[in-house]
Amino acid sequence: MTERIFAEYEEILRLPNEPENKAGAALDRWRNPVLTRAHVPPFWKYDLDPATNPFMIERLGVNAVFNSGAIKLGDKYVLVPRVEGIDRKSFFAVAESSKPTEGFRFWDYPIDVGDILGETNLYDMRVTQHEDGWIYGVFCSESKDPDDPDLSAAVAAAGLARTKDLKSWERLPNIKSSSGQQRNVLLHPEFVEGKHAFFTRPMDGFISAGSGGGIGFALCDDIENPVLGDEIMTSKRKYHQIAEAKNGAGAVPIKSSKGWIHIAHGVRNTAAGLRYVIYAFATSLEKPWEVIAEPGGYLLAPLSGERTGDVSNVLFTNGAIVDSDGTVYVYYASSDTRLHVASAPLERLVDYVFNTPPDAGRSPLCVKQRSELIAKNLEFLRNK
Amino acid sequence: MTERIFAEYEEILRLPNEPENKAGAALDRWRNPVLTRAHVPPFWKYDLDPATNPFMIERLGVNAVFNSGAIKLGDKYVLVPRVEGIDRKSFFAVAESSKPTEGFRFWDYPIDVGDILGETNLYDMRVTQHEDGWIYGVFCSESKDPDDPDLSAAVAAAGLARTKDLKSWERLPNIKSSSGQQRNVLLHPEFVEGKHAFFTRPMDGFISAGSGGGIGFALCDDIENPVLGDEIMTSKRKYHQIAEAKNGAGAVPIKSSKGWIHIAHGVRNTAAGLRYVIYAFATSLEKPWEVIAEPGGYLLAPLSGERTGDVSNVLFTNGAIVDSDGTVYVYYASSDTRLHVASAPLERLVDYVFNTPPDAGRSPLCVKQRSELIAKNLEFLRNK
Repeated sequence: MTERIFAEYEEILRLPNEPENKAGAALDRWRNPVLTRAHVPPFWKYDLDPATNPFMIERLGVNAVFNSGAIKLGDKYVLVPRVEGIDRKSFFAVAESSKPTEGFRFWDYPIDVGDILGETNLYDMRVTQHEDGWIYGVFCSESKDPDDPDLSAAVAAAGLARTKDLKSWERLPNIKSSSGQQRNVLLHPEFVEGKHAFFTRPMDGFISAGSGGGIGFALCDDIENPVLGDEIMTSKRKYHQIAEAKNGAGAVPIKSSKGWIHIAHGVRNTAAGLRYVIYAFATSLEKPWEVIAEPGGYLLAPLSGERTGDVSNVLFTNGAIVDSDGTVYVYYASSDTRLHVASAPLERLVDYVFNTPPDAGRSPLCVKQRSELIAKNLEFLRNK
Repeated sequence: MTERIFAEYEEILRLPNEPENKAGAALDRWRNPVLTRAHVPPFWKYDLDPATNPFMIERLGVNAVFNSGAIKLGDKYVLVPRVEGIDRKSFFAVAESSKPTEGFRFWDYPIDVGDILGETNLYDMRVTQHEDGWIYGVFCSESKDPDDPDLSAAVAAAGLARTKDLKSWERLPNIKSSSGQQRNVLLHPEFVEGKHAFFTRPMDGFISAGSGGGIGFALCDDIENPVLGDEIMTSKRKYHQIAEAKNGAGAVPIKSSKGWIHIAHGVRNTAAGLRYVIYAFATSLEKPWEVIAEPGGYLLAPLSGERTGDVSNVLFTNGAIVDSDGTVYVYYASSDTRLHVASAPLERLVDYVFNTPPDAGRSPLCVKQRSELIAKNLEFLRNK
């Protein structure tokens, strides 16, 4: 039985991958997921000793592998996904491959990020290779709300840890801000005005203070005792647009000659629950908090098998890698269940971000916008 | 690349269709959707000029094509679906075919319904060929609720426009009624008591006024300045029936010798969000607001691939065509993503509506109802 278990596991890791090659896509989806629970090593789940596990059943199952930080270390592609046990608790682990799209193998042990704050759950790490020389992980640190008798009432804070090698981690205090709760926080890879800079997602308390809500930006004087200064809004929530209900930063911003490329998520409500899509925008190289381009609509939305899972109708990203040849690999999870990759040359992604028309705002204006495109095309086809 | 894009588009339009031919169905589903986003012409989405679109990516994507009005004009089958851009805004467009079940091709431009009211979103047009000589479109006109700071708070009203050719439209004022909000309104094709008559779906304000809620019916003195008189309830919401949470008119009522056939939708709540099914009822030829038959249960509920989409677990219809040979084609959308067709001879649909037992109301009475059917059948089989 053990042989079969390991053989199946190795077969999963050998599975090749290929791009879907769909016309018109800004990002090319790859056919197979890059990480699933089937990629988790058998020795994480089984007691392999038949003397104590006579039926060879899983003793500590894994439910899902999804939302992943991503960096390239040397010539290795390294993912730091959210691994969720069947007990609902998430944790972090490192999976690496010599290819960006397949063959990801977990290291022997999950990450021990340090248990200094007593939280109940940890998830969605953004991994930033900062110019200060450290690799930082910023993640959600979630605890039971001590003031609410409701068993499901939680408090979300931004946890912070750093490492040089992804093996030994130094846990830092949770990030403090003027917002009651924080999720989807990430560290910008460069100093801004000589300081560490964070993209944030201040929660409702902050929103009702009149900000309008969206993805925030704040500086931090001391990364070892992280307190955020004033949060400036970057990409905002807007009525009847893809980020009406909420939005949040995703992958660490990607530097291009025209600006920082952000790949984030937007959420709207539907009769069947929330729908999460992935969208993109750009901020200025000089002022990384200033949005200089924001395409209308989404970059990726759930399709086919991505549509269903533990939390259906969700696409989410918190990691991307820019390869040495200029290809961007965006690691995105579907429906809180599995991790996929989509890729594009950086210049195509830049073209998408800067040349896709912005959201026209209202249906009649959208018809006008589209009819102008149609007129231009019909003219072009006539003259061809 | 452009050649490939147009070739794939033309291939979609050439796709044949066939009925599923499933035993026991009142309506025969057809295998392939009749409209999807793949049916949208490339020149609506791409900038086809390689000089300005070097990577040939979609500049104005389309997310979905679904809920559609339907009429036959001359020998053409004409659909007026809800087209939703990737920016979440919906608008209307005309697609026609010489067959009722396949080959629908969009006209070059979407419909410009007139921008006189400044709404944010337009959707779900019912298209009525009225005996007054006009073709009317009644649709939802949705705007941000100015009184609610919540970004997602909207006000739904019934918009109205008319045309002779589906090309040039005259926008009329939104329909006024005593209900705060209105959705799923449609215009009856004949005058009732010499007036224009509407089926309505008064929203919560109206319901709390003591009516019980459901599909309403009201007359209108002046179609150019549409104000509805008192709303009479027709098909009502009922506890633990298919329209417990809400219901709404669907296709324009179909005239038969026994009464007006209505194909509507009913909604109930579940742990995974709302579930929309399609049901049917009949109203009197003399008093089109008076329900004279209402089969128990649904006519169509989400199945297989219909179950998932942008808003899963939804079937919805707002259009049907009665062909010259007496076949009824019901155009229904699944999960806010794609448009399908189901068909039946009108006489079979009439048989379904008038001879399907009504909802027995309570589980023990349903057992009694079913056991009587079983007894009759066993007797029939014995005597065969």
